[in-house]
Amino acid sequence: MYDCPQRGFGIITFLLKYHPKGYVMRLSRYFLPVLKENPSEAQIVSHRLMLRAGMIKQAAAGIYSWLPMGFKVLRKLENIVHEEQARAGHIAIQMPILQSADLWRESGRYDDYGQEMLRMQDRHGRDMLFTPTAEELVTDIFRGHVSSYKDLPLTLYQIQWKFRDEIRPRFGVMRGREFYMKDGYNFDLTKEDALHSYNRHLVSYLRTYERMGLQAIPMRADSGPIGGDDTHEFLVLADTGESEVFYDSAVTDLTFGDRDIDYDNREQCQAILEEFTSKYARTDETHDEVLFNKIPEERRRVARGIEVGQIFYFGTKYSEPLGATVQGPDGKPVPVHMGSHGIGVSRLIGAIIEASHDDKGIIWPEGVTPFHCGIVNLKQGDEEADAACAKIYKALTALGLEPLYDDRNERAGGKFATMDLIGLPWRITVGPRGLKNGVVELTSRRTGESEELSPEAAVIKIAEIYEDIA
Amino acid sequence: MYDCPQRGFGIITFLLKYHPKGYVMRLSRYFLPVLKENPSEAQIVSHRLMLRAGMIKQAAAGIYSWLPMGFKVLRKLENIVHEEQARAGHIAIQMPILQSADLWRESGRYDDYGQEMLRMQDRHGRDMLFTPTAEELVTDIFRGHVSSYKDLPLTLYQIQWKFRDEIRPRFGVMRGREFYMKDGYNFDLTKEDALHSYNRHLVSYLRTYERMGLQAIPMRADSGPIGGDDTHEFLVLADTGESEVFYDSAVTDLTFGDRDIDYDNREQCQAILEEFTSKYARTDETHDEVLFNKIPEERRRVARGIEVGQIFYFGTKYSEPLGATVQGPDGKPVPVHMGSHGIGVSRLIGAIIEASHDDKGIIWPEGVTPFHCGIVNLKQGDEEADAACAKIYKALTALGLEPLYDDRNERAGGKFATMDLIGLPWRITVGPRGLKNGVVELTSRRTGESEELSPEAAVIKIAEIYEDIA
Repeated sequence: MYDCPQRGFGIITFLLKYHPKGYVMRLSRYFLPVLKENPSEAQIVSHRLMLRAGMIKQAAAGIYSWLPMGFKVLRKLENIVHEEQARAGHIAIQMPILQSADLWRESGRYDDYGQEMLRMQDRHGRDMLFTPTAEELVTDIFRGHVSSYKDLPLTLYQIQWKFRDEIRPRFGVMRGREFYMKDGYNFDLTKEDALHSYNRHLVSYLRTYERMGLQAIPMRADSGPIGGDDTHEFLVLADTGESEVFYDSAVTDLTFGDRDIDYDNREQCQAILEEFTSKYARTDETHDEVLFNKIPEERRRVARGIEVGQIFYFGTKYSEPLGATVQGPDGKPVPVHMGSHGIGVSRLIGAIIEASHDDKGIIWPEGVTPFHCGIVNLKQGDEEADAACAKIYKALTALGLEPLYDDRNERAGGKFATMDLIGLPWRITVGPRGLKNGVVELTSRRTGESEELSPEAAVIKIAEIYEDIA
Repeated sequence: MYDCPQRGFGIITFLLKYHPKGYVMRLSRYFLPVLKENPSEAQIVSHRLMLRAGMIKQAAAGIYSWLPMGFKVLRKLENIVHEEQARAGHIAIQMPILQSADLWRESGRYDDYGQEMLRMQDRHGRDMLFTPTAEELVTDIFRGHVSSYKDLPLTLYQIQWKFRDEIRPRFGVMRGREFYMKDGYNFDLTKEDALHSYNRHLVSYLRTYERMGLQAIPMRADSGPIGGDDTHEFLVLADTGESEVFYDSAVTDLTFGDRDIDYDNREQCQAILEEFTSKYARTDETHDEVLFNKIPEERRRVARGIEVGQIFYFGTKYSEPLGATVQGPDGKPVPVHMGSHGIGVSRLIGAIIEASHDDKGIIWPEGVTPFHCGIVNLKQGDEEADAACAKIYKALTALGLEPLYDDRNERAGGKFATMDLIGLPWRITVGPRGLKNGVVELTSRRTGESEELSPEAAVIKIAEIYEDIA
């Protein structure tokens, strides 16, 4: 590698450009409409906390506006998904929200889909629908542009708003009607190649969820309306989950960690699939009592889980009716082998909160927190406290971190309660008394533990915490 | 500022994390379905070039899928808009795509909007619509959460897919039905405050368009169905524009440049508004022949323009019917003064191409190019050429830049034609003959000029070009 990285790209300049002034925030200028009361309509803790922390506001049944802090977390999750998909060699596209009914008639799903599909007619009377998934449209893109096996393998994905007209939307964003979803589609020449794509998705998903601070267990599942032979759902264990799950407790000991993955390496991906799926773990749809009872009794677990993703291999189910063929090595046309792979991006926020909160509020994992650190000024208007807060704010910003500075004229108790509710993992508390001794307080939201240290040391510590995350 | 920025945040590590492997691309693994023939359905050059360069594919009339390179440009524009809105102190939210008809009945626009609004019923028979704009919904968010003048000023914005059922969609993404738009809404206590918000938007838009390599001229316009007193449209001059425009040629001499803006400074923002709007510049809707004829004859211009944004001040038009009031300083409720402000993000891609192309293809401005630099290997399979390309690719990547490496087994002519068509501003050409003399060729897409220099020097030059842009 050439010896030129230092030329001009001063890190501070670069980072300030990447996070221009304004991305970071003072609370007096932000829009964070926290609620003091528990909203009566919310039945589960994530819904309650998202409303209380001013992250979402209901616009209609199962349809939400994402307020600033909610949107910030949504973007963070979206970026993690994009980064991990790119790492696996998958290519981002964006398909439209409205689709023509014609394609869905070609695949035969237009009539099958039932009342969950939202249908409408445009001004010329053409049948349209709000996309619930995009197997048909992506296959149409493929068949229009790819004609040779030499252009395979290919995996296209998008992150886009979807709609499913749930009869009883509930649990906030966990079971909404309009939701943000990553949906990816692989196109391969053979079943063997497509199964490698399947494995590659499984590996990338494990990595994605772990970066979000979640343990999501792949479980053998039912393929439902997508169809196909092989499918795994990823479930986050939580009492409020909608699915009943059965598993060997040994699966919860597995962690993905910081492995170096070569996504082209079939053996490596296959080995990871086996590592994470060979132990018994199934949803009620595929549960097998006989197999389950073979697990040593002390390791048998029956619990509830939130589904946060699913991967499918379905072979030529769509490529055949839609005529998505390529010319094979022998010159003859063959239908491509496909699979589809989804992550429920908006629903993940609910799952993360279900898995990470206490009775004071949310506790964000560092990888997805909307702000890296809160700054609480105990005495707004005090010259030294104001100056120290401004200096800390500026130093964190210059490091490319995003602090949220509570600069309001409020009592300390109120400020602490807000910080606890919105769940930033770290808080720097600055007051005249501490400053006299040259110290501020650094507090972990998760443990509640505090330490006193100099403002400089507090900034460095925050920087070190986020070094491998931000 | 504390002296800690170097601790741990090695720039290379950081940049590689920000642009993980895979964000950058080798063409043999990318999906860039370029067309050799001119598509017959495209009437204007931007539509033609977007189809030929494999950026979009029509899914239905006026509805497009964004293929990988198109989506990449769309994301770049989106990020520029986010950065400039953040700089102006505006706060990002995300409102849903489907809205309930009830709110639109409250404002009285449900019946007014006519056939351009796409309406539907959900499974329970409730009237819904695909959002064409969001004055009602954002006002509902405001009235639900803000009650005191102390929480003003507030500007919320989103970038979201919209739908308008154009009777004759055409010109590709320039006049599509489903389009990606930034829409922002300011809430202020007084008319004077709201006019400062108006000015702040004008300033931030000038800066936004210039970063995209566009000259967009603010012109006095008609307020149309949004309503209100003050409004400016931003127009990019192009023969294919739909609006006839009349202006003093002196306006095209104005550039925003690298000004240091304090968006809280009313005088500064007002002065910029005056600088950019005091010369005559109007669309046909507000054109005044008498005023126009007062311009010295040699400076009078009649031309065509593409509308890429519009700002409005409309006072209490929505806050009154929807009851969006705050408690004023005297304790009495007052309806807030509002405006709304839009940028047509997807349409901008068409406008940029209309303004920047030649007969070989697109010429991307550096600020929005999907890849910073192309790498053309003249002899794929030649050991030295392959190694040199890999080294250049790695060095650019390590600098946080995104090269597109044409590593296909194709003739040089075909590779050059593709690079010219897709319009990357810079190309590094690597071949065995040059390498024998220790040089590669660096070519500017805009001027066509080439220079020979060492691979190291070529990488440094690309880095310097993007130093203030990437």
